[in-house]
Amino acid sequence: MQVQAPIEPEDEAHLYDRVAAHVADLIARGALRPGDRIPSVRRLSRQQGVSVATVLQAYMQLENRGLIEARPQSGHYVRARRGAALPEPRAARACTTATRVSVKSLVSKVYRACRDPHIVPFGAACPSPELLPTDKLNRILSAIARSAGGAGVSYDPPPGLPALRRQIARRSVEWGVALSPDDIVTTVGAMEALHLCLRAVARRGDTVALESPAYYGLLQLIESLGIKALEVPSHPRTGMDLDVLEEMLGRHRIKACLAIPNFNNPLGSAMPDEAKERLVAMLARREVPLIEDDIYGDVHFGDVRPRPAKAFDKKGLVMLCSSFTKTVAPGYRVGWTAPGRFLDEVEQLKFAQSVATATLPQMAIAEFLEIGGYDHHLRTLRRRLAAQIARMSEAIAEHFPPGTRVSRPAGGFVLWVELPSGTSALDVHERALEHGISVAPGPIFSAKHRFSNYIRVNCGYPFTELSEHAVRTLGRICAETAEG
Amino acid sequence: MQVQAPIEPEDEAHLYDRVAAHVADLIARGALRPGDRIPSVRRLSRQQGVSVATVLQAYMQLENRGLIEARPQSGHYVRARRGAALPEPRAARACTTATRVSVKSLVSKVYRACRDPHIVPFGAACPSPELLPTDKLNRILSAIARSAGGAGVSYDPPPGLPALRRQIARRSVEWGVALSPDDIVTTVGAMEALHLCLRAVARRGDTVALESPAYYGLLQLIESLGIKALEVPSHPRTGMDLDVLEEMLGRHRIKACLAIPNFNNPLGSAMPDEAKERLVAMLARREVPLIEDDIYGDVHFGDVRPRPAKAFDKKGLVMLCSSFTKTVAPGYRVGWTAPGRFLDEVEQLKFAQSVATATLPQMAIAEFLEIGGYDHHLRTLRRRLAAQIARMSEAIAEHFPPGTRVSRPAGGFVLWVELPSGTSALDVHERALEHGISVAPGPIFSAKHRFSNYIRVNCGYPFTELSEHAVRTLGRICAETAEG
Repeated sequence: MQVQAPIEPEDEAHLYDRVAAHVADLIARGALRPGDRIPSVRRLSRQQGVSVATVLQAYMQLENRGLIEARPQSGHYVRARRGAALPEPRAARACTTATRVSVKSLVSKVYRACRDPHIVPFGAACPSPELLPTDKLNRILSAIARSAGGAGVSYDPPPGLPALRRQIARRSVEWGVALSPDDIVTTVGAMEALHLCLRAVARRGDTVALESPAYYGLLQLIESLGIKALEVPSHPRTGMDLDVLEEMLGRHRIKACLAIPNFNNPLGSAMPDEAKERLVAMLARREVPLIEDDIYGDVHFGDVRPRPAKAFDKKGLVMLCSSFTKTVAPGYRVGWTAPGRFLDEVEQLKFAQSVATATLPQMAIAEFLEIGGYDHHLRTLRRRLAAQIARMSEAIAEHFPPGTRVSRPAGGFVLWVELPSGTSALDVHERALEHGISVAPGPIFSAKHRFSNYIRVNCGYPFTELSEHAVRTLGRICAETAEG
Repeated sequence: MQVQAPIEPEDEAHLYDRVAAHVADLIARGALRPGDRIPSVRRLSRQQGVSVATVLQAYMQLENRGLIEARPQSGHYVRARRGAALPEPRAARACTTATRVSVKSLVSKVYRACRDPHIVPFGAACPSPELLPTDKLNRILSAIARSAGGAGVSYDPPPGLPALRRQIARRSVEWGVALSPDDIVTTVGAMEALHLCLRAVARRGDTVALESPAYYGLLQLIESLGIKALEVPSHPRTGMDLDVLEEMLGRHRIKACLAIPNFNNPLGSAMPDEAKERLVAMLARREVPLIEDDIYGDVHFGDVRPRPAKAFDKKGLVMLCSSFTKTVAPGYRVGWTAPGRFLDEVEQLKFAQSVATATLPQMAIAEFLEIGGYDHHLRTLRRRLAAQIARMSEAIAEHFPPGTRVSRPAGGFVLWVELPSGTSALDVHERALEHGISVAPGPIFSAKHRFSNYIRVNCGYPFTELSEHAVRTLGRICAETAEG
């Protein structure tokens, strides 16, 4: 085992957290593999310059998280990741006609379950408040509200709070985009950003291309604007099939392309850089804008934050959208877009649509980005999400019927699960709700209601005994549904 | 002079405020008219059962506000309201063709000046933070943020925060509407509410009827959706000309009607109840929805809060929209709609458009409505706005060129000023900005760019010497512009 640089003790109280995180990271990155023996308590203690008690606590935490197991008289081992043994789901077949979209009623059902504390939250792709910097953020907002005076109650007209745009621009350098604050418009979450961008470039009756399966929010958005969707099959690891897209671009008049290249929801796919570059170039040749949702870009399980497709944009045609919904605070409703050459149009639409984004939440997020340790928080969040996804994959492998396939995302919140052929995901969804479990059924991820035997499982909540129990129940429901 | 019930001393510290408010109210309602002598200090002190010092303080405040003046050896008198001497602006002529709308670039200029502290804010219809319950609200939000925990950072999916919807429903009883919390969807300010309602009932290429002059935000909204506007002339006191509307309904296929019946922006008109009833019935006969913006309804200068047109809605066709932007906190971006029979559609559009409204601002407004003394605050706000409007009218009468006409609103924030024929409001707007004064030029209140010699003047800020100076400058600019 390669144990890297010793952990630096910054904060004694949570030293064991950091030791545990370090080991979890080695596991997540494959440096330690299932069945590997991990260093003895004594050895790690010497290596890392921490006390034996600290290492013991770290190992106990890792055991609780299900990442390692103690074998009597033998030491600690990486637990078998049974999930990894399941094959990946299959990509959709290409489909050549554009479709009017209609998914809305099912979606609100899935969504509402997210806030019901009596329902196991495997439905919407929400993070648990436990995983978010809730206390810190609330403290920041509380302090700002106390001292903001008139600025807190006043309008912040588009393009939005300068301090927040500066922070976003500062961070964008790390993604290879290097935005200026003036490139950015703040919005009510990423959804308003996507909505504004789509309105700026397409209208009722137009056709847009998007990934299949597609995030249902995008489908609803398209549906609400009377736009038609052309679904491009996506591979669970590499994303949109660019050969198919290229062919479609030749045959259809496509007004825009929508994509989630980094840790796609629901697929979990991560488009390689070369593919992003090809996508951007392919669209640019035809002057077709790309509306890019990068809301999961910061939640990578590997070492490096992937670049958005915007990094390859030479013509100002990529409209980058994101928010702090998945990583900081869904309820603050703070998002943004860098819409390239459509900046003026987006800004004016923003004004007409909601005038401004709430001022205090923007101030709080700006301050959190500046001084609150966003990067530190992200490291923890990424580790925990990676562990939760691993635990959920294992549990699915253990409890779901044979023939189940599961995605292996390298980032994000969700698993995309292909159930044995013939299993109705809509039936599974209904029966699961009766058992107090919410899942997102496959058909809401397609304008054509495909993916009838797929479900998406949210892993944004800590994996507990209750989760284990729920997965077992869900597996039984799937098996029963498969049998009819 | 009829002095009514004595003022009850609730809070000694601000007793003189209440005495002053009482006298200001008598002036605003015309019980005391310009030139009338007001009771002697001694007499009012006896009548109201307060000390002589309290009355003196009250009179000093009234003098400072420009409502009364001391005449040596003679006592206090109501100041001449020179503004009242100016005639009202004239209504627009009827116009029978629908127009594609285009006002956006001018509007953002006007709007942005609102936040620039170096510009005299006669442009956008913004209240001064001084007039708002800024400190109280910030304290409430601060406390909520400290104690909210996960609830503060979590999503609040449509229809929006139950506590807020309950408070709105409770208040609606007083307007003769009696909404249930379930009738309401919370939104990002009134603008998002209007946007959602319009999207629910009309689409690109459709025609809607609206008042002329019309609030430019409505025109921008219509423009952004590619909808055509049919402008119905409005009278500065009674609002939309219903005979013209009736005729238009017979001749055009109108998909919806948009109106601000209570204290119209920019006109200041207040539609009488019978007119509201007729409007609602007229539209209902043709199944045409009415999108009603009641954002100024709470800011009446008379005793009684006017009812919204929604109070006469029998078929669920009135889509009532409002917010706390003008009365509590523009920057909180909390609004709502009660869209009648279009509730489901509006809720789904809300989800697709911005997913949710920020949670903590909703919580703060709900608590302010419940325990923060909204009614008490409104009483002060209304008095101050009435006084500011009176002072501004006077100053305009004094400093503007002959031939100027001014509206006499019974509520709201703004004055609608007709400049001598031939004066270019766009030129006035430009030259005024060069002098650091923002006004809203008439043409942005019309899809057809009518009202070329009108300006709208915001009275949402306390009238100071700086204001007086600015009005003098503005008057000079108007005179010079009129002369060419």
